[in-house]
Amino acid sequence: MLAIAQLENLLQSLAQVGLQAEVRQGDESSLLVFVRASEKRLKRAVYRSRVRDWLYGIRNAEPTSANSTETQTEAERLRVVHQMITHPGEEGGAGITPNHGEWKNVTAIFPLHDIETNKTWMREWSKKTFLSDDDLDQIRNKFGESVGFYFSFLQSYFRFLIFPAVFGFSCWFLLGGFSLIYTAVNCLWCIIFVEYWKRQEVDLSCRWETKNVSVVRTNRREFKPEKEVIDEGTGEKRGVFPATKRMQRQLLQIPFALLAAIALGAIIATCFAIEIFISELYNGPLKTYLIFIPTILVSALVPTMSAILTSIATKLNDYENHETKDAYDVALTQKVFVINFITSYLPIFLTAFVYVPFASLIVPYLDVFHLTVRPFVSKEHAVAKQSHFQIDPARLRNQVIYFTVTAQIVGFAMETIVPYLKQHALRKYKKYNKERNGKLERNGDKESPERPAIVFDDPAEEVQFLARVRNEVELSEYDVTDDLREMCIQFGYLALFSPTWPLVPLSFFVNNWIELRSDFFKICMEFRRPVPLRTDSIGPWLDSLGFLSWVGSITSAALVYMFSGNAQHGPNGEPTDIKGWALLLTIFFSEHLYLIVRYVVRAAMARIEPPNSRKERADRYLMRKRYLESSINAEGDEDDEEDELASQSQAPEISRTSLEDDARKASLHGADPAARFWLHQRGWTESAQVGAGIIQAQPVRGSVKKQQ
Amino acid sequence: MLAIAQLENLLQSLAQVGLQAEVRQGDESSLLVFVRASEKRLKRAVYRSRVRDWLYGIRNAEPTSANSTETQTEAERLRVVHQMITHPGEEGGAGITPNHGEWKNVTAIFPLHDIETNKTWMREWSKKTFLSDDDLDQIRNKFGESVGFYFSFLQSYFRFLIFPAVFGFSCWFLLGGFSLIYTAVNCLWCIIFVEYWKRQEVDLSCRWETKNVSVVRTNRREFKPEKEVIDEGTGEKRGVFPATKRMQRQLLQIPFALLAAIALGAIIATCFAIEIFISELYNGPLKTYLIFIPTILVSALVPTMSAILTSIATKLNDYENHETKDAYDVALTQKVFVINFITSYLPIFLTAFVYVPFASLIVPYLDVFHLTVRPFVSKEHAVAKQSHFQIDPARLRNQVIYFTVTAQIVGFAMETIVPYLKQHALRKYKKYNKERNGKLERNGDKESPERPAIVFDDPAEEVQFLARVRNEVELSEYDVTDDLREMCIQFGYLALFSPTWPLVPLSFFVNNWIELRSDFFKICMEFRRPVPLRTDSIGPWLDSLGFLSWVGSITSAALVYMFSGNAQHGPNGEPTDIKGWALLLTIFFSEHLYLIVRYVVRAAMARIEPPNSRKERADRYLMRKRYLESSINAEGDEDDEEDELASQSQAPEISRTSLEDDARKASLHGADPAARFWLHQRGWTESAQVGAGIIQAQPVRGSVKKQQ
Repeated sequence: MLAIAQLENLLQSLAQVGLQAEVRQGDESSLLVFVRASEKRLKRAVYRSRVRDWLYGIRNAEPTSANSTETQTEAERLRVVHQMITHPGEEGGAGITPNHGEWKNVTAIFPLHDIETNKTWMREWSKKTFLSDDDLDQIRNKFGESVGFYFSFLQSYFRFLIFPAVFGFSCWFLLGGFSLIYTAVNCLWCIIFVEYWKRQEVDLSCRWETKNVSVVRTNRREFKPEKEVIDEGTGEKRGVFPATKRMQRQLLQIPFALLAAIALGAIIATCFAIEIFISELYNGPLKTYLIFIPTILVSALVPTMSAILTSIATKLNDYENHETKDAYDVALTQKVFVINFITSYLPIFLTAFVYVPFASLIVPYLDVFHLTVRPFVSKEHAVAKQSHFQIDPARLRNQVIYFTVTAQIVGFAMETIVPYLKQHALRKYKKYNKERNGKLERNGDKESPERPAIVFDDPAEEVQFLARVRNEVELSEYDVTDDLREMCIQFGYLALFSPTWPLVPLSFFVNNWIELRSDFFKICMEFRRPVPLRTDSIGPWLDSLGFLSWVGSITSAALVYMFSGNAQHGPNGEPTDIKGWALLLTIFFSEHLYLIVRYVVRAAMARIEPPNSRKERADRYLMRKRYLESSINAEGDEDDEEDELASQSQAPEISRTSLEDDARKASLHGADPAARFWLHQRGWTESAQVGAGIIQAQPVRGSVKKQQ
Repeated sequence: MLAIAQLENLLQSLAQVGLQAEVRQGDESSLLVFVRASEKRLKRAVYRSRVRDWLYGIRNAEPTSANSTETQTEAERLRVVHQMITHPGEEGGAGITPNHGEWKNVTAIFPLHDIETNKTWMREWSKKTFLSDDDLDQIRNKFGESVGFYFSFLQSYFRFLIFPAVFGFSCWFLLGGFSLIYTAVNCLWCIIFVEYWKRQEVDLSCRWETKNVSVVRTNRREFKPEKEVIDEGTGEKRGVFPATKRMQRQLLQIPFALLAAIALGAIIATCFAIEIFISELYNGPLKTYLIFIPTILVSALVPTMSAILTSIATKLNDYENHETKDAYDVALTQKVFVINFITSYLPIFLTAFVYVPFASLIVPYLDVFHLTVRPFVSKEHAVAKQSHFQIDPARLRNQVIYFTVTAQIVGFAMETIVPYLKQHALRKYKKYNKERNGKLERNGDKESPERPAIVFDDPAEEVQFLARVRNEVELSEYDVTDDLREMCIQFGYLALFSPTWPLVPLSFFVNNWIELRSDFFKICMEFRRPVPLRTDSIGPWLDSLGFLSWVGSITSAALVYMFSGNAQHGPNGEPTDIKGWALLLTIFFSEHLYLIVRYVVRAAMARIEPPNSRKERADRYLMRKRYLESSINAEGDEDDEEDELASQSQAPEISRTSLEDDARKASLHGADPAARFWLHQRGWTESAQVGAGIIQAQPVRGSVKKQQ
């Protein structure tokens, strides 16, 4: 039987790399294989991984032998065991690749949750406002650097939000929306935050010893090389896919971005138009119900279209045939960011830069079906109605409030509470189903087409443990990218539109207090424990943050220019004084001021070295110094005699002998003038005597020149 | 006598580090001290320097012992000897710092020219169009990486100019000035060139083994630490100057930049106004002579003001108190760039963006002294004259031609030919003077107040050599920065203004053919041989190139928008159709298009690995692999038995003994369920049997899950 053969193969491969396995029953159609590495084996694997780190320059201290007592974190152990299972044979692993090739029946490899610790932490953190560096270290030690970096980022962001939250509240209270001061401070804050985080990343990667970790890249199994070449340098055979060909394929990103913009843009703009039409022009029957149509349409169509586009993006990304997992992830992240950018910000862009300035021109054309011209209203009346159309000045603000408050709460619910409830409901349903089936079976009811539930014959003492494991198997895999994306998009609202409503940072501050805890809860309860991954940054999201903050300098300036005068222009809010050239000039100056300030902040930040980075540098220096000293000592002995010769402080007496000596030497070297040149003065004292003679002969004593 | 004591001190210090010295007479008031390192000492110093490089990760191959046969280039030898002389005692040098402290009578330390080779090369290169990679390697081997990088840059730039030279010529012939196609291609070319050079720098630094060389920084002697702290990590005492304090001082750059802009701007704008007034308004007497006034003023005032500003910049830079020489040079380069940017480009900016659009508004006000209203001209006539003022459409083009052709030729003459002639004239004069003095003395003329010329009593065979050395002493020091600045400013004209006159690249192409040779000639004949310096880039000039190319995207777009329609608007060239918003929109799109294209080009370039970089990576990989293999082999033996145990493929037979064994073990471990969990199955075959049993019992065969 194939399944049994595969299982044997699996167990044999695991045993070969020294992993002990225990097989238990999974659910109806699966097995659980528990894997454990012996202490000795694990130590050796950890040592080997550390040696590789050292060679790639990730760690500074050379790892001492395999039996060293250097502490291993839980994350390191789990990572190494995971590498033992998944790495290819030539790197000392079992080469098991879930869902791929001969291992396609291996659905997942993951560690088990440490329930006790998780509970303790959740309890502790709910009492604190900020997580300490120690807490972050703990997260990293449990879940690996990748999750650690996310929490660290979230914590930094949360802490940084205090200032704009307070400042925004004051501005809102004193100055209202679209205040120039708030906008300038907000832009500056964005720059400082992004640059601070860059610095913080360096600091963390030194603290967690993952600097340059991206150098050690794991190749993707899905990579299809075009040809195999033998590497000249290393003599190894390796698959190659020409970079130019990949770039040609990447050109497809341009039509993709256009497609995404048009598809999503069309949906959003249409719904937007319908909404305005119904709410502000239409006065017919059922208005109270019709008003919900656009919301329903948006809620239904946008996620659908996003899902379609994401799947297209994934296919495109597969087609680009990246060689390493990192490159693949970066490329996919960029594509996903484009989709998210459009869905998140386009509605507000439409309101601010299309609806407000051009509504009075566009709106009358919205009535394509002449729905407002109904038989019982005279044509004149309808026209009068249209010309009385007024822009709703609160629309922009309301929309920003919707996206920064309501949508955040909804998102939190959808992401944390709903899955939790669903999961509980599902478990209850399964249990109920099982009980019913059991009853049916016991009742001898043969009509039931359902397959009989398995009765797990677990050892009594393991029942509880295996039940927990089976629950964890049913959870889905955690991907830190989703959480990072959420934060990045949130930052975008702040950078792009917060001048509209300066309470945005306050709202985010509150939201992120919850987010910081709920995300941890989510990882512990709603996902399988993630395999610890090492990383030295939050990856391409950092670029996205920088990009958003840059775009923010443009939109903020435009918003302030267009709307800040509103109060003076009366309540209709129609800005008539807007001049194209003035708007563009504002944007031009704002953007370049932004770039200059960013340059200055960057230069200033570069000067201040993060503490852990300094420590890392000192470590490196010490290591080097030890080496240098030992190498100099090693060869110092042989040269000692020469040293004495060279530094002898007594001139050889100029006697008859020495003069004869000189003459002999001179004749020995014959006609070679270069050799004779160097024979004039012997020892430094003789040179000094000659020099003194010259100096005394000189009319003016002055500078001494020296040449090699 | 102080001078003699100092000389003794000098010679002793040199002897202590193992350098042999010969003293000869310099000119009237100086000594020449020739220094030579013994072969053995030099080898050891080279080895030590290589070990340090290896530790800092600059080279990959670990240097073998001091007696290795690895080739030393001349540059390396000279650099190491220079280090032996100048490095402080604790780094194994003699600690001699020219013009500083106790060594303030040492005016210079430099190697001597290799006249034969220089002549051969000059002869060979005059026959070639391009220097080969070998030629560049030769330059690097003679003059060090810093000069090598300059010639490499010049060569790359020269080679890259072929395309715009040909394309520009075609555009000029077919489309004339301000062609959109030329502008777009030019901007794209600038991006590609800058990005190509970045890549080339990496390639060269791998080829010349200077990657990361900036890590090994030499401290400045002039650095004044605020306090001394003991470094926690390294335990070394070192001077510290707070970064925040330095940043505060650096804020002075802002008033400095403003001052420079105002001072130079005022001079240039005034001269510009005078020129326009005289050439286009003034019709009085002496016009043919007066027309030269502004040119004379500019030629006299701008260099004076530049010199004043440069000295202020140097003082500011000293005040900033940089710790390392690199930081100091970078900071100074930035300040110098600001001055150069203003003096080089402001005149054209004024013509293009002030004179042309606003001349008809401004020019009438230029006549502040009412010089055009002379008694014998009626007032009406004068007014009529003024209103007839016409913008000179050729002015912009002529100015660009002046800066890109005439000024280049003048610059070449000033920089290469004039110093050469001056130097020869000076030598002739000195010789003549000496002869005359000699004659006077012989004539017994005691009235001559001049001090008597020295009669050098050199050994006969050394007369020629010492005369050459004395000539070299009189030359000034070469600074590669000046040549790089010249090229950078030249590139700026191309990026910023070449749409005006598409023959600019052709002119530069011809100019740089000469430049490439004349610069080499200059280094060989007009300067002391430079001490070889290592570097891995052309430094801050690279940023300047990027900046200029960016600004080019703005000015080019503005120029094309403002002037491309000229032909249709008649010969007066006054553009009346220019709309502020359209100009700003053009700039906005052009700049952002530029940034996007740059992003794409950068991403594409990053994918293609330069050949030497690949080789370097392969070397590093091989080194690592050797290490890894040896470390695994070393500890492989002890674990062999465990390996066998772990991968044993036969299950222990389930016999009475083994069952008893199990029971015993279970009782041993007592109540620990975790330990008992792992005792159920022994060896992978037993696990496989259990697994097979579960699979067969399952109604549906499916996936296998696996957990750690």
